[in-house]
Amino acid sequence: MPTRPAPRIHLGPEGDPFLAEGIRRGGGVLVPLDEAEAVVWAQGPDTFPGALPDTVRWVQLPFAGIEPWLAAGVVDSARSWTSAAGAYSGNVAEHTMMTLLAGVRSLREQLSATSWRKDEFDPRVGTVQGTTVAIVGCGGIGRALIPYLAASRCRILAVTRSGVPVPGADETLPADRVGEVWSRADHFVIAAPATAATRHLVGRSELAQMSPSSWIVNVARGTLIDTDALVDALRAGTIGGAALDVTDPEPLPDGHPLWTLPNALITPHVANPATGLPRALADHVAGNVARFAAGEPLAGVIDPVAGY
Amino acid sequence: MPTRPAPRIHLGPEGDPFLAEGIRRGGGVLVPLDEAEAVVWAQGPDTFPGALPDTVRWVQLPFAGIEPWLAAGVVDSARSWTSAAGAYSGNVAEHTMMTLLAGVRSLREQLSATSWRKDEFDPRVGTVQGTTVAIVGCGGIGRALIPYLAASRCRILAVTRSGVPVPGADETLPADRVGEVWSRADHFVIAAPATAATRHLVGRSELAQMSPSSWIVNVARGTLIDTDALVDALRAGTIGGAALDVTDPEPLPDGHPLWTLPNALITPHVANPATGLPRALADHVAGNVARFAAGEPLAGVIDPVAGY
Repeated sequence: MPTRPAPRIHLGPEGDPFLAEGIRRGGGVLVPLDEAEAVVWAQGPDTFPGALPDTVRWVQLPFAGIEPWLAAGVVDSARSWTSAAGAYSGNVAEHTMMTLLAGVRSLREQLSATSWRKDEFDPRVGTVQGTTVAIVGCGGIGRALIPYLAASRCRILAVTRSGVPVPGADETLPADRVGEVWSRADHFVIAAPATAATRHLVGRSELAQMSPSSWIVNVARGTLIDTDALVDALRAGTIGGAALDVTDPEPLPDGHPLWTLPNALITPHVANPATGLPRALADHVAGNVARFAAGEPLAGVIDPVAGY
Repeated sequence: MPTRPAPRIHLGPEGDPFLAEGIRRGGGVLVPLDEAEAVVWAQGPDTFPGALPDTVRWVQLPFAGIEPWLAAGVVDSARSWTSAAGAYSGNVAEHTMMTLLAGVRSLREQLSATSWRKDEFDPRVGTVQGTTVAIVGCGGIGRALIPYLAASRCRILAVTRSGVPVPGADETLPADRVGEVWSRADHFVIAAPATAATRHLVGRSELAQMSPSSWIVNVARGTLIDTDALVDALRAGTIGGAALDVTDPEPLPDGHPLWTLPNALITPHVANPATGLPRALADHVAGNVARFAAGEPLAGVIDPVAGY
């Protein structure tokens, strides 16, 4: 087998050590921009070079959401561009599983105790083992969540735009049948994009179909849930609870009822924390450099016409 | 294929509805004791029948630890006896993954906040993605934990008595090499039986080999960890933290330093909560009734000579 030459990668605007390691791990060598076949960019569009050498056939951008890059007119059709879509899904899935379990297993009250209140807490500890979980918007995060839920032997209902079966899900429904899941699942993970169509996807009528032990985890955008309707359901106990990493409004203002409801778990949009970005992105870059070297399709290719 | 007759099962001392459902789900029919081929027993040994009909070829006991049954002289060699070993592993594994994540991701401080402290919390949110986790005592609980850790793409070091490779572990070490794991893994799950040999398995020298970001989760027995040494390590920050569902002493007395150390997460021995027992046991019973009907080996067979 002929040895392929190591791909020549420029890392800009500065030599981030995590990304440099990822490039080397993927089999690449670091070179100045004018010798590069590919560019891995570690910051926003403001400092991006005005023109790239024609030799650059691929550019890796550092974010999953690439609206600012499209707005800046940086993305052209002369080469392939990849986003960080998927790079951070594992971290968000981990957060999702943790907070779903924390809700169902009444973890917060246990962690705030300063005495051994076993008899009081034991009856409040539930389990997700064997329950049915709906993943509403089953993209990268949802797919990364499936193995955790499978470990708890959950039945998984996935909802996607197309309804094309998601591997590992017991059933996949297209978005226009999302209304069926509210009465069928025990718990709900909201991971759909925020669009006009998904605003208040979970409102009063959806909440009314859930059970008093149902938990909702929102790791998408706050506007997907009608906050006032949710607060009413939490107060009335018609659902088990909600774990929200995103809120509407966000940041959640001081004194908002969600801060003090015992069945609301609020985390301040940290499912994908800044601390985790360099390592997660380095893994993503290592994979793409290896694919580039092997001439295989890259992960996260941007379609500049579609806008994602 | 000839139809096998449904196994005739006696459920005693009373007709627990969860277990009755499990027996039927496994293909059995409920009968009085004097017509039974097998007995499923839902309570302790005190009320167990003094003599069983000779027709009873199998008895299912409701606990994983069967010392009281052996002490009462109930277990004989005239038939097969099965414990509930393994029935509760999934629930404990779920708790283990939850508290490991809660520690590494700094969940407690977030859940006690009443304002949006994103900038403060974000840098403290870690991840177990891609870390190395040692499962010290990798029996039923450890094996149920492996799929959760695999979802986080962890490297798994299993320690078992024999060292026979555990499916899904990247490496399995025999108990006499447990000393190797303390410096090699990022995090530690303690799930070994409490014996004279495992008392203070984690002491000062073991803690000294861990890293400032290492978390320990103990779901076995409190005595496996030297509590005083642990408190010192937690205070000094030489380890990341400890999530303890079991303590020494247990119950943990009011005013004990573990209650207020920010990097100690205490749950009051609820990883396997009483609320979950009937359903978990019913699943175990359903499986064993189906195996009994099919003439297959039963799960959790007791060896009365070995004592487990």
